[in-house]
Amino acid sequence: MSVTVGIAELTALVGRILVASGMSGDNAEIMSAILAAVERDGPRSHGLFRVPGMVEILKSGWVDGRARPRVQDKAPGLILADAGNGFAQIALASARNLLIAKAHEQGIAALAIRNSHHFSALWPDVEPLAEQGLVALAFVNTRSYVVPAGGRARLYGTNPMAFACPRRDGPPMVWDQASAAIAHGEVLLARRDGRALPPGVALDRDGQPTTDPDAMIQGGALLPFGGYKGASIALMVEIMSAAVTGGHFGFEDDGNPAAPTKNAGELVVAIDPEKSGGARFRDHVEGLFRRVVEDGEARLPGDRRRVERQRAAEHGITLERAVYEGLLSLSP
Amino acid sequence: MSVTVGIAELTALVGRILVASGMSGDNAEIMSAILAAVERDGPRSHGLFRVPGMVEILKSGWVDGRARPRVQDKAPGLILADAGNGFAQIALASARNLLIAKAHEQGIAALAIRNSHHFSALWPDVEPLAEQGLVALAFVNTRSYVVPAGGRARLYGTNPMAFACPRRDGPPMVWDQASAAIAHGEVLLARRDGRALPPGVALDRDGQPTTDPDAMIQGGALLPFGGYKGASIALMVEIMSAAVTGGHFGFEDDGNPAAPTKNAGELVVAIDPEKSGGARFRDHVEGLFRRVVEDGEARLPGDRRRVERQRAAEHGITLERAVYEGLLSLSP
Repeated sequence: MSVTVGIAELTALVGRILVASGMSGDNAEIMSAILAAVERDGPRSHGLFRVPGMVEILKSGWVDGRARPRVQDKAPGLILADAGNGFAQIALASARNLLIAKAHEQGIAALAIRNSHHFSALWPDVEPLAEQGLVALAFVNTRSYVVPAGGRARLYGTNPMAFACPRRDGPPMVWDQASAAIAHGEVLLARRDGRALPPGVALDRDGQPTTDPDAMIQGGALLPFGGYKGASIALMVEIMSAAVTGGHFGFEDDGNPAAPTKNAGELVVAIDPEKSGGARFRDHVEGLFRRVVEDGEARLPGDRRRVERQRAAEHGITLERAVYEGLLSLSP
Repeated sequence: MSVTVGIAELTALVGRILVASGMSGDNAEIMSAILAAVERDGPRSHGLFRVPGMVEILKSGWVDGRARPRVQDKAPGLILADAGNGFAQIALASARNLLIAKAHEQGIAALAIRNSHHFSALWPDVEPLAEQGLVALAFVNTRSYVVPAGGRARLYGTNPMAFACPRRDGPPMVWDQASAAIAHGEVLLARRDGRALPPGVALDRDGQPTTDPDAMIQGGALLPFGGYKGASIALMVEIMSAAVTGGHFGFEDDGNPAAPTKNAGELVVAIDPEKSGGARFRDHVEGLFRRVVEDGEARLPGDRRRVERQRAAEHGITLERAVYEGLLSLSP
């Protein structure tokens, strides 16, 4: 049993839910557009599935849905944004045009967001920058879930990193991936659906390998992807998102360990690739992308999201009826 | 049978070899210091082991040992350097002080090196920036060796990426890792020593898994570390080092496919973390590093290099006699 909705209708529905949960209209407009786009393009573990948790943390006051970010033009290449204990995406939306202008002027610029929460996927944070011709990187940390190289206990967040590159034709090439072997949202989905985890992604509270989502959630930990090299990436993301921004590490006490978000930070870096690589930049990278696809068996990161977006544009977004009715029950 | 030498003696010996191979004295000073430091700290696959290949490509004229980099102050946050078909490290040395000054002034700055070759490890490129209080990233590409996600044929380079973070006390925390599951230098070492490769790192020319170093070298390929996520990192490094810099991708024809280096590019990004994270930055990251080590079983990236450096400072650098005599035979 499924329901088909358009992106505008879904965005409006999520927006009404967020406003009813205490979010200001302006902020809800930004967050609902992101959540609906992530539901449309994927991964669904970071789309509508997150709405009930978002409602809960807004109602509890853990996240301030009415926060107005304070944006500071700190240096020619650096913007600081205090999200005021709101969502990082709202701070990013407030600073985005300044970041784009600085990157074009300076060649490279950074936005350091602190006092912020990040819920949902990271790709929507970098894609709009690549649509303006910039190569963009984003780093965000989460609560402690991931063990360091050789370790057995939670320390790093799942720590996603996203990368976006403009293309000659069509939407940018974007990847967005956790430094953990599996996203925490996927563990929650597996628990909900009664599925085992793949082997090699999680430890239980005693530091032993497990495929039981509950054993991971109740005091266990996630492994980094790719062994010690993935752990190095997780460490870099932790430093970039929390220390470089003046935010909080995943392990630092923040008063509400039960909440699904962490008051943390996000760093976004934007580079004007035509300033350094010349006017041929888009043709040049297109040659690389063509080679990936010519292999016949290989694919570009983000290809699945592009397919889903195209399908939704033609046929609407297909939701399970239970998911849709769950949303309606949250809506005023 | 081993020989013990000091870092100054080893640097001078390598310098004489490079000058005898056609390198200018200034350039040889930079490269010999790097090669000796990498032999001292590791990985040895990127130290003296590389010297005979370096001699060969200098004598053949594939790399210009007398190149003088042209450094251009392109924008407030961006430096371009044309390495003049010389080694990237020499261009970096020419532009380093400007990069440091720009990062402190702008908050973030980038150095894009093109028309360059990179031999040896990447950590020496970022460590000096962290010693000046900067968080630094470097991306460099190599010849095509690595298959894209889901692919079977060489496309990306082994594409190392390095990250350095200043510390409150002592040398910076630095990691330097290939996007490939194993560095190409390690494959060459395994062939020399008659060792098999670990499973899961290489394919033969038919795209089938192999542990035979020769099968990889003769038309085979390396796998990315960590599956599709490592492949995303390799793709990012390829774009950053070759397209953003105006250099060459690993697969692009460059006239001498037999040479051990690629005329490619390198991107270095430097961030002033105190401008964004405040004066507490070093104390803050020290708290993270302390937590990694407190786990008891975990270690920080680069720990082994720090131990080797300390040991060499006390006892000198221990070389196999055959390696030392091989160097002497190359020296005038």
